[in-house]
Amino acid sequence: MTPVTYGIAIFPSKEIQDEANSYRKRYDPRYSLIPPHITLKESFEATQEEIKEIEKACSELAKKVKPFDIHIGRVSSFSPTTETIYLRVDDHDQLTYLNEKMHEEPFPDNREFKFVPHITISQELSEDEHSDVYGSLKMLSFDLYDTVDRFQLLYQLEDGSWTVHETFKLGEG
Amino acid sequence: MTPVTYGIAIFPSKEIQDEANSYRKRYDPRYSLIPPHITLKESFEATQEEIKEIEKACSELAKKVKPFDIHIGRVSSFSPTTETIYLRVDDHDQLTYLNEKMHEEPFPDNREFKFVPHITISQELSEDEHSDVYGSLKMLSFDLYDTVDRFQLLYQLEDGSWTVHETFKLGEG
Repeated sequence: MTPVTYGIAIFPSKEIQDEANSYRKRYDPRYSLIPPHITLKESFEATQEEIKEIEKACSELAKKVKPFDIHIGRVSSFSPTTETIYLRVDDHDQLTYLNEKMHEEPFPDNREFKFVPHITISQELSEDEHSDVYGSLKMLSFDLYDTVDRFQLLYQLEDGSWTVHETFKLGEG
Repeated sequence: MTPVTYGIAIFPSKEIQDEANSYRKRYDPRYSLIPPHITLKESFEATQEEIKEIEKACSELAKKVKPFDIHIGRVSSFSPTTETIYLRVDDHDQLTYLNEKMHEEPFPDNREFKFVPHITISQELSEDEHSDVYGSLKMLSFDLYDTVDRFQLLYQLEDGSWTVHETFKLGEG
């Protein structure tokens, strides 16, 4: 069996997903591969045995964290690292905690960048398109609140799309 | 709050999803809205209070059913009812049981058709296209096995795509 590619993400409320999609459908060619999300752990490979350990660890981790509120107040960009525009989720201790634990044993430490909680709304545009889109989006003001009460372990199909493998509800068990 | 549209489905193994997607990407315009799936309950609307009851019922129901094996042996079509081509999942007592319970209180009884377990691989083609595609697909032989150990409650976004709300693992708790 070849290893499967997994990732861990939070899907925000339907309202926030609908808002994000209104931009994604225009500015994000990866729009249809996964619903709008906050990545907690970037994609990593795992064998069937490894993922069983990771599922157990996710379950233990979820129990330790109570549901918490997040806030989105602005649009930002990762440019010049990548031409990615995103809804910036304010830093939050619980988000940081989840992200850190997901890079410790038994999770692989596949961190490449500092953790910046965000929902991508535009990517893979040319530099010029990025400038145009970012120029107009960064003028918008956002004031979105949500309660995070779960996260999801997903795996990637051959076509690049993602299927949810399991939901982990915070503070339960 | 307007009611949200929900549905309940089983995502088969990655291997079966990849196989189904190889057809869906050519023959199913709804391909990108949801991964390949076996629908257990067609879409229904629910308020926030109703869905809490339904989540509880899903959780109780999942505990009562042990993981079970399914088999896919052929392609079939719902024509002339709809021009939908699908991988036929053999009837299975546990599938029938889940489907029946999901149409009893507190679930709404929104059944329109007899339950035929299937994974759609082609839909919304013209009658002629359907005939062509079905003519070639029904010649293929399939012999796919999978173990069902969970089902998922999903909700629909404004753009028609689906996000997983919760995973219910069979036989646990």
